[in-house]
Amino acid sequence: MGIKNIKGLIDEYLDNYFIARDGENKLIYDAMAYSLNIGGKRIRPIIMMLTYNLYKENLKDILPMAAALEMIHTYSLIHDDLPCMDNDDLRRGKPTSHKVFGEAIAVLAGDGLLNEAFSIMINYSLSDKRLEALNATKVITDAAGGNGMIGGQVVDIINEGKSISENTLKYMHEKKTGELIKAAIVAGAILGEATEEDIHTLKEYGYKLGLAFQIKDDILDVLGSTEKLGKKVKSDENNNKTNFITVYGIERSEELCKEITAECLALLEKLNKDTSKLKELTLELLHRES
Amino acid sequence: MGIKNIKGLIDEYLDNYFIARDGENKLIYDAMAYSLNIGGKRIRPIIMMLTYNLYKENLKDILPMAAALEMIHTYSLIHDDLPCMDNDDLRRGKPTSHKVFGEAIAVLAGDGLLNEAFSIMINYSLSDKRLEALNATKVITDAAGGNGMIGGQVVDIINEGKSISENTLKYMHEKKTGELIKAAIVAGAILGEATEEDIHTLKEYGYKLGLAFQIKDDILDVLGSTEKLGKKVKSDENNNKTNFITVYGIERSEELCKEITAECLALLEKLNKDTSKLKELTLELLHRES
Repeated sequence: MGIKNIKGLIDEYLDNYFIARDGENKLIYDAMAYSLNIGGKRIRPIIMMLTYNLYKENLKDILPMAAALEMIHTYSLIHDDLPCMDNDDLRRGKPTSHKVFGEAIAVLAGDGLLNEAFSIMINYSLSDKRLEALNATKVITDAAGGNGMIGGQVVDIINEGKSISENTLKYMHEKKTGELIKAAIVAGAILGEATEEDIHTLKEYGYKLGLAFQIKDDILDVLGSTEKLGKKVKSDENNNKTNFITVYGIERSEELCKEITAECLALLEKLNKDTSKLKELTLELLHRES
Repeated sequence: MGIKNIKGLIDEYLDNYFIARDGENKLIYDAMAYSLNIGGKRIRPIIMMLTYNLYKENLKDILPMAAALEMIHTYSLIHDDLPCMDNDDLRRGKPTSHKVFGEAIAVLAGDGLLNEAFSIMINYSLSDKRLEALNATKVITDAAGGNGMIGGQVVDIINEGKSISENTLKYMHEKKTGELIKAAIVAGAILGEATEEDIHTLKEYGYKLGLAFQIKDDILDVLGSTEKLGKKVKSDENNNKTNFITVYGIERSEELCKEITAECLALLEKLNKDTSKLKELTLELLHRES
């Protein structure tokens, strides 16, 4: 199955996920569904499914786990956009959650998506019955937590307006963006029952892919357009944030992004599998305009 | 083991939980630990352990699960106190998280505690290896989510300043407070490998205990003192919220609380177990001053 079809599967699953939730608390599901289906690129669930697909045929089997990962990503965006955080009004070309539903509901919609993701993963672990399901859940949960994505977010906030070291910049991005991308790949491999050796190689691939992804994000923040990105450009500059561009400059950042992408492709070569679609996606991420 | 000693065990476990977390992201663990160890009554983990203790001797075995439950409760308080929600400056006699760490870190500390709770429960499920652990995790996760605690919170917010029906009031409190108290009891029973019949009775007990707990909370909000409660009194009145007092008046609310407590004790009688400590706690909740 091609990347576009996989994205279609994920979109369909998520589009239908909150339908028919009714009752006094309907608003929370409306708010959760709004941000979840606002037009995300679904990169993390696609990567998880492509990695799983190296080892197993039936992609649809892990749709719930892929959806849970996208919910965690979405919750982090909702909270990240809040006035007390990055104070962004636009996300994917649409008003952010707190602009539509107000701050209180936006906080709760984020909480709700994180909680729903765990519900899905626990139900999956109960029905799948393999230890792999619980292990994949652990990988995703750890990646999202205080020593993962949330940790990166905190380092981002406490260093706003400060000049930070290259090491702190790498730490911040590795945690804030990289951990969840790496977890997508590792969880996909675990669910696919990959060998320890393959998981090790894929972990390295995931680490590098996350890094390249973040450098490209920083480049687009400077060179991209609001129209194509669907969010404010130069937000780092306006928030006085250090990023790869302020440390390395545009030219070196673009080189770095290409070099790391090449390393990603070399790592995929090491696997004795048909990695053509993962390579395609890796290159797409390098060349994306949003 | 007596209730005070059980509380001591939980306090000790939580006091030590975030020690020795260091690195760039230290602040998030400081903020998580601050709210977690600000002097909570530990009602939910105590109830879970007392229920478990009806069936199993070694209480300490489920300390991690009890701690996870308290983390979920604490995260909900941090987010509930935010300026965009109830805007409370005091909690348990101390400044709330956003007063100490700022709003952005308070949002993330709440997220971090919810995430940490899931990490603990998944690790527990992996090491415990019994299906009961995963089933208890499911009960707690569902109780915390959009159809549980978060749902109640949403209904609370959208009805602020409005006159609401008795049914909506009951729904709101059953979800906002009751679900997690009921989950504490049911999860404790599941982990203790109670019979289906006992779990059914304990679920009913949990539902009624949560209701009595919330009515008492509303009474204390009107009759209590900031000094004893450690938080603002009359906060419902000031936020134009409907509660049991505005619907039934003080006198009838106090009667209701006693009646429901008596029903709780009668349910415990139905179990063929030594429920003396659970009865003691049930009465303590009725007579508490904070």
